[in-house]
Amino acid sequence: MDSSENEALVTEEASLDYLTAICARITPLDADVMTLARARQARLTKPPGSLGRLEEIAVQIAGITGLERSTVARRAVVVMAADHGVTQEGVSAYPAEVTAQMALNFLRGGAAINAIAGSVGANVTVVDVGVAADVTHPMLLARKVAAGTANMAHGPAMTHEQALAAMAVGAETLETLADTGLDLVATGEMGIGNTTAASALTAVMTGRPVRAVTGRGAGADDERLQRKIGVIERALQVNAPDAQDPLGTLAKVGGLEIAALAGLILAAASRRIPLLLDGFIASSAALIACAWRPRAREYLLAGHVSVEPGHQIILDRLGLRPLLNLEMRLGEGTGAALAMAVVDAAVRAHAEMATFDEAGVSEG
Amino acid sequence: MDSSENEALVTEEASLDYLTAICARITPLDADVMTLARARQARLTKPPGSLGRLEEIAVQIAGITGLERSTVARRAVVVMAADHGVTQEGVSAYPAEVTAQMALNFLRGGAAINAIAGSVGANVTVVDVGVAADVTHPMLLARKVAAGTANMAHGPAMTHEQALAAMAVGAETLETLADTGLDLVATGEMGIGNTTAASALTAVMTGRPVRAVTGRGAGADDERLQRKIGVIERALQVNAPDAQDPLGTLAKVGGLEIAALAGLILAAASRRIPLLLDGFIASSAALIACAWRPRAREYLLAGHVSVEPGHQIILDRLGLRPLLNLEMRLGEGTGAALAMAVVDAAVRAHAEMATFDEAGVSEG
Repeated sequence: MDSSENEALVTEEASLDYLTAICARITPLDADVMTLARARQARLTKPPGSLGRLEEIAVQIAGITGLERSTVARRAVVVMAADHGVTQEGVSAYPAEVTAQMALNFLRGGAAINAIAGSVGANVTVVDVGVAADVTHPMLLARKVAAGTANMAHGPAMTHEQALAAMAVGAETLETLADTGLDLVATGEMGIGNTTAASALTAVMTGRPVRAVTGRGAGADDERLQRKIGVIERALQVNAPDAQDPLGTLAKVGGLEIAALAGLILAAASRRIPLLLDGFIASSAALIACAWRPRAREYLLAGHVSVEPGHQIILDRLGLRPLLNLEMRLGEGTGAALAMAVVDAAVRAHAEMATFDEAGVSEG
Repeated sequence: MDSSENEALVTEEASLDYLTAICARITPLDADVMTLARARQARLTKPPGSLGRLEEIAVQIAGITGLERSTVARRAVVVMAADHGVTQEGVSAYPAEVTAQMALNFLRGGAAINAIAGSVGANVTVVDVGVAADVTHPMLLARKVAAGTANMAHGPAMTHEQALAAMAVGAETLETLADTGLDLVATGEMGIGNTTAASALTAVMTGRPVRAVTGRGAGADDERLQRKIGVIERALQVNAPDAQDPLGTLAKVGGLEIAALAGLILAAASRRIPLLLDGFIASSAALIACAWRPRAREYLLAGHVSVEPGHQIILDRLGLRPLLNLEMRLGEGTGAALAMAVVDAAVRAHAEMATFDEAGVSEG
């Protein structure tokens, strides 16, 4: 073992220790507070159940925060950006340099996620966890683990060390935001080629055929879609990932931004902060996070369901029902950010409404 | 003809003239501006179509306002409150006095619509267009046309004069709000017994059996649901409403708040203000408004789909797709108010995003 290999092992062990400690801090939702929240819902001036899923959300958030009445005033969308070596196989309709260009677009406020986050009062944090090109901006969190993944069609996308380091970047980002005050977080991502990685992860972790979990991403035509399916099948053959080894699967056919989101998801649960999943990419990260620590699922809300066919399959596997279905397929965190409005309405109705007694309204 | 009958005819004619003039001002959406808006969508930094229904919304709003880039900053929820004589038949799980109690709850800020409107930055305007009890509050718009409708199980719910007067109240309310500045309006209502009226209207206007369009409202059990269906069938037999005569149908089996919402819908279209329908009650008002002036439909967005079985039937008839499906069935405007967040995100993404050229992002 030469000294660089030794160093890598030390770093890998440090990341694993950090993430294992986070996982150990993920405890069950507060059942007593959820009981109080359900009792409050029954006393509010409305027919019982008439706010539908808003009532469920309010009870879940109470269980997460441990407060009968919560607020989700401080909101953040975290956009993890990284590149994918597999774009060499022609799986995406867009050139790989778009990852860096869009990261700058986010930082300059010109992307969809900026407009939608602005609309729901959320801050946008952009993290370079593995963009191939150099990206420089005063507001960028520069946490590059590697200049993109390796091409998974020929071998593992990441080393174990890289996958764990990227997860640690995600977890640390969440912890930093939480330290300064955070009530609700949404997952965002940017990475040309990342639906290819998400489809590969989903095929492995759900056992479904590649064909069933692979879609057009940013806009692949029929020919490119067939090529994409073939490339993913080859990557699974070359790497032989095992669903029983979620971290190994993540390293072999995942992505740096997906790993970072998996770390973010675990850290949010450990800090008892509700997390809105965005679309297919973020949900593939949740598959990995929840395979490692199943209880993390209780802290998740599915912001929306994407047009990507694999997304509903993941949500079914995780037992999550999407809040929105607006036929979106952009990523960036756009669906999750928009769903913050639904969560806000739910917790505000729960916290602010008068009870039948308080309002002097007759019950049915 | 005695003098009171003569006065009624004069008033009826004045209301009809006012509403007819409003209908005449409802013109098609601006097709040229919609073409510009579609072209802009294609240049924004995202894969074409990837914002899904948000893109459709942005184009529709452009057609409504006549502006390539619009804002929906100034938002109002208008809650029309009225009582229903048919509650004498035991169709509702709640006593009729709840209409007045809840109107006061809205005015004091304690209801779900207050919390949700607050969450999306909308003002709440409460109009007494026919509450049976006296309601007094400095912020109430006191426009009582009658102290509730008559019992439609025994005869017409309203005279033609009352129905037209209530429609005029709705139209005038919209025009007053528009004069002071309004970019987006949501329909709200409160009226114990009003799902019974909405089901009757829906059965007539869509030709579907009463059973198919009647649900549990605020929480009718099986026995009460059967009674409700029987009462509606009796009301249709007694009044013999005709779908070819929407105003006559409204008067016979509608409600004062439903009439007011129909007037509000027509006036919003005439003032080129996008209108978010809430649930079953508001959509039954849209059935009447659009039967009178079909073009009004182009100015509508369906905020959500309610649990009430008749609601999807109306939306199908009107060709509207709901923005949200959160299993809500409260009314008050709650679903429509929450959908304001979706409309805001759509118009902000449309107006604020950079184009590929502006951001220096490569196209696919």
